[in-house]
Amino acid sequence: MILDFALRYDPQPFHLDVEAAKASNYGGLIASGFQTMALGFRAFIDLGVFRACGMGSPGLDELRWPRPVRPGDTIHSELTITEIRPSRSKPDRGMLMTAMRILNQHGEEVMTFKGMQLTRRRPG
Amino acid sequence: MILDFALRYDPQPFHLDVEAAKASNYGGLIASGFQTMALGFRAFIDLGVFRACGMGSPGLDELRWPRPVRPGDTIHSELTITEIRPSRSKPDRGMLMTAMRILNQHGEEVMTFKGMQLTRRRPG
Repeated sequence: MILDFALRYDPQPFHLDVEAAKASNYGGLIASGFQTMALGFRAFIDLGVFRACGMGSPGLDELRWPRPVRPGDTIHSELTITEIRPSRSKPDRGMLMTAMRILNQHGEEVMTFKGMQLTRRRPG
Repeated sequence: MILDFALRYDPQPFHLDVEAAKASNYGGLIASGFQTMALGFRAFIDLGVFRACGMGSPGLDELRWPRPVRPGDTIHSELTITEIRPSRSKPDRGMLMTAMRILNQHGEEVMTFKGMQLTRRRPG
């Protein structure tokens, strides 16, 4: 899965070539950080919390990959809603400010970011 | 390609379901922003500039998706190196601070972010 993603989207030697990865600063194959991001976010989408109300995202901030994800690792996501901002101009929606942490099987952070989620809102 | 990525990584209705997308705030199918990110970055990797010297990235900041990418759109990337920071502790490497713009066929920004690229460095 790491190689498949790397071939399509991030063909850097340490994501794609086991021998080159061994010789790299990572000492072995690591997953593309974009794959970690997409999979971690998917775990969140699969919860279904936003299935009916998600309206996409304008962006995110302070994305960090503090540790690599390696073959065989298991990752999970923790999302905290840090702030709720009802839209002033459109009463049917609002913005959720979020803090996302993606952790490996040892409980270590492999990725963190601060996100924004546009969502539908019940009439106040 | 939009649907394939959405199925694997970002199964939100406006990325995956043409009819649901029509009824959404986007008025039609749009690509996952993570796909735009991965493809835009791939275009940059394919230039080969970092083939021999790329050492990965610790993260990125101020990621924004100002406009959606729709089926049939063509995107390209522009990366500007905004700052060079030689490592103080490790003379064989340094950090490039970058500004990435991903544009559609009308020259409109569909994604921007400020990136960091760890790279190998020639002895000074």
